[in-house]
Order: sequence, then structure tokens, then C-alpha cells
Amino acid sequence: MTAPGRFISLEGGEGTGKSTQARAVGQALESRGLTVHLTREPGGTPGAETIRELLLTGHDEKWNMRTEALLFAAARAEHCDSLIRPALEKGEWVISDRFLDSSRAYQSVSGELTDADILAIHDVGSRGLLPDRTFVLDIPEEVASRRAHARDRGESDRIGGRDSGYHRQVMEKFRQYAADEPGRVRLIEASGLPEDVTASILEDLSDLLG
Amino acid sequence: MTAPGRFISLEGGEGTGKSTQARAVGQALESRGLTVHLTREPGGTPGAETIRELLLTGHDEKWNMRTEALLFAAARAEHCDSLIRPALEKGEWVISDRFLDSSRAYQSVSGELTDADILAIHDVGSRGLLPDRTFVLDIPEEVASRRAHARDRGESDRIGGRDSGYHRQVMEKFRQYAADEPGRVRLIEASGLPEDVTASILEDLSDLLG
Ligand SMILES: Nc1ncnc2c1ncn2[C@@H]1O[C@H](COP(=O)(O)OP(=O)(O)OP(=O)(O)O)[C@@H](O)[C@H]1O
Ligand SMILES: Nc1ncnc2c1ncn2[C@@H]1O[C@H](COP(=O)(O)OP(=O)(O)OP(=O)(O)O)[C@@H](O)[C@H]1O
Ligand SMILES: [Mg+2]
Ligand SMILES: [Mg+2]
Repeated sequence: MTAPGRFISLEGGEGTGKSTQARAVGQALESRGLTVHLTREPGGTPGAETIRELLLTGHDEKWNMRTEALLFAAARAEHCDSLIRPALEKGEWVISDRFLDSSRAYQSVSGELTDADILAIHDVGSRGLLPDRTFVLDIPEEVASRRAHARDRGESDRIGGRDSGYHRQVMEKFRQYAADEPGRVRLIEASGLPEDVTASILEDLSDLLG
Repeated sequence: MTAPGRFISLEGGEGTGKSTQARAVGQALESRGLTVHLTREPGGTPGAETIRELLLTGHDEKWNMRTEALLFAAARAEHCDSLIRPALEKGEWVISDRFLDSSRAYQSVSGELTDADILAIHDVGSRGLLPDRTFVLDIPEEVASRRAHARDRGESDRIGGRDSGYHRQVMEKFRQYAADEPGRVRLIEASGLPEDVTASILEDLSDLLG
């Protein structure tokens, strides 16, 4: 019998280091002989990337919040069905740069949708699939925005471009999920050196690495 | 105080005459001095039409049924928010060529999704908006497929191209909705002349026309 596949997600605001850590953790796991799929949301498969394109381009008011939430859920349903579940069934690892918790945080801030609404459409779309472990990268807001701006030179997509009050509320939501679901969601202090952050994540994963 | 706006949907299989009747009923209502918006699903607004494009082009297996249902719900959320509700709030009429009952019928036939699943995502996406009256155009299968083929010359879209067993089950679902919700959903015998079908629909609408 092969060991079960494991599903890890990385969450946090813009510029917190999710993509950097996804790559570093992926390499570390591969060097232990595991097969690792690095993927991201929205997107991750060709079909889901066409939905990503609809979501992230255009003006800020392009979609109302309900439509936006359903498009994210549609992209995720495709991602789970075509990539994540098949990999897990083969005993492989999946690391996703953002997943459900980003939808819960970003699409509930306006108050138009509740957390229960977002979980309900995730149940229908993706049969409620949850990661085995979720890392929320936590750093002071100024550090994150400095990192993101240095990288993007002031350009950002339709959602990243929302104001700092929005992004502060999103981070509060992420901290709340870690408090509510301590078994799955772990807060990682991420303002240090990239290699130190990677080490904290790998240490936290030791129970899943067996 | 203006009279309330009314929302009518036309449902039925391919080639049953929905588009023909939407136009004819729209003209009849306009000639009574009403403001009427003729629209269709999936689509009806520029944003929703970009989702329609993703849904109806490509190969039959392009989307799994859960993703397909969420994309329909996303397009409908945009359609309700940008076109249907604003028109109803102004006291205008809306006639939609297909609406929620098409999603219930087409996306539940495979058995992968339940009617409750589809209604749940409609609640989140469109706050459960239902038409004031829904007409299911009912004709023998051979008549419908003759009409649709004569018009399309054998070309059909990703969903219209599914086999006749699928389309027969869809029609059974529509008849069931008429039986379950007799106040809203009316079965209209639609194999006669177009003008006779229009007359049946208008007669049925007399209570809403006041
Ligand atoms: N620990 C770190 N210390 C300093 N700089 C970092 C650290 N981690 C990442 N960076 C740099 O900060 C920028 C943002 O990092 P990264 O792209 O990984 O963040 P992200 O969370 O994926 O952002 P986004 O949400 O915008 O995709 C990059 O230029 C990256 O090289
Ligand atoms: N009562 C009728 N008698 C004969 N032909 C009809 C009648 N109603 C419509 N048609 C013709 O049948 C064809 C299909 O009609 P229509 O396009 O209105 O159907 P539809 O239900 O909108 O189809 P689809 O689901 O493919 O959009 C058209 O060529 C139309 O002119
Ligand atoms: Mg990134
Ligand atoms: Mg038509």
C-alpha cells in the first residue's frame, strides 16, 4: 500500500511570500523522494485558467460579489476534479498557492456573502475538499505591501488592487480561521528570511511526513 | 404607484419554440404599452455572455457537471443583478429564454448533482430569484428535433449536442416541475401554429396583466 497523498495550501495576503514558499517547500519535499504537484488558485488547470482570466482582468466592479464567488468556486471545482483529487488518489502531494480560505476571506469581507454561503458552494462544487494542512503566512502589513510593490512595480490585478482596509480585513479573517480550526490551519510568522520560513513550515509538517 | 414588474421565463428542450415565443409574447406585451426586456440564458448581459462562451464552446467533456453548474449559476447571478432585478424594480417586464429550470433539468440528469444542490447555489448566487410565471413548451420529441435540425442544419452547441436519451430525461424533469409548482410553472402544448401557442401563453398570463 502506498502512503496517502497529502494536500497543503498556502494562504495570506498579497506579497506575504506564498509563491516563494510553495516553490521552496515543494523542492524540499521532492528531495525526500515525494512526487509533488505545485499549483495555484484561481487556475491550476487549463480550464480553470480560462476562468481565472475572467476573474482577474478588467475593472474592479466587473463582477458583483456573488458572481465573483461562483466563478472562484467553478474554477476550484475544475481544479479539484482534474488535478488535485487524481494526484491524491495516486499517493502524490499537492501544494496549492491559495485555495478555499482565500475565497472565504476575500469574498466575505464586503458582508454581502456569509462564510456559510461560501462553504455551501464549495460543498456542491468540490464536494467540500479541504487541505490536510493550511499555512497562513503572517507578516506586518507594511512589510507585505513593500514586498508586493517591489515585485509588481505598482501593477496589480483586479482583486489585488483593492484598498488597504480591504486587505487588512482579509488578514483578520485568515487569523480567525487559524483560531477556529487549529488542526488544519497554522499561522506562520513569515517576516524572516525565506529559508527560515520554509524551515518552520517543514517542521510543522513533520507529523504528515511520517 | 406603478404596477409591479413581472418576470416570465420560457423553458423546454431544443427546438420547442422558446425563442420564437419569447419574441412573439414580447411584441404582444409591448403592443399593450408595457416595457419589455427580451433576454436569454446563459448570457443576457455582456459579462454573462463571456461566461456563456466558456460554457457552450469546446468538446462535450470540457467541464465536469459541478463546474458546469457553477458557471451557469455565475452567469445567472450577473444576469439577475445587472438586468433582471433593475428592470423589475422599475416596473418593467422581463422575458427570459431559459432560466433556472434549465439548470435544474440539464445539470441534474446525470445524477451527479441533486435538485437541492442546484437550488442551493441559486440561493447564494441570485438570492433565489424565481420568475412570476414559467412556460414549459411541450411537444413530441420528433417534432422538436425536426424543428431544431431544420434550423441548425445539424450543427449544435456543446450541450445541445448531447444524445436523445439525455434530452428525453430533461423533458421529463420539466414536466415534473410543472406538476410540483403549478402556481408558477405551466405546461403549454406547443406543437400547433406559432400564433396559437402565443395565444395560449397570453391567455395564461391574463391574471398577471391585471
Ligand atoms: N521571507 C522573505 N523575505 C524577503 N522577501 C521575500 C520573502 N519572501 C518573499 N519575498 C519577496 O517578496 C515578494 C513577494 O513574494 P511572493 O511572490 O512569494 O508573495 P505572494 O504571497 O505569492 O504574493 P502574491 O499574493 O502577490 O502572489 C517577491 O519579490 C519575493 O521574492
Ligand atoms: N409552432 C411552430 N411550428 C412550426 N415551426 C416552429 C414553431 N415554433 C418555432 N418553429 C421553428 O422551429 C425552429 C426552432 O424554434 P426556436 O428557435 O424558437 O426554438 P428554441 O426552443 O428557441 O430552440 P433552441 O433551444 O435550439 O434555441 C425555428 O426554425 C422556428 O422557426
Ligand atoms: Mg504569488
Ligand atoms: Mg432558442
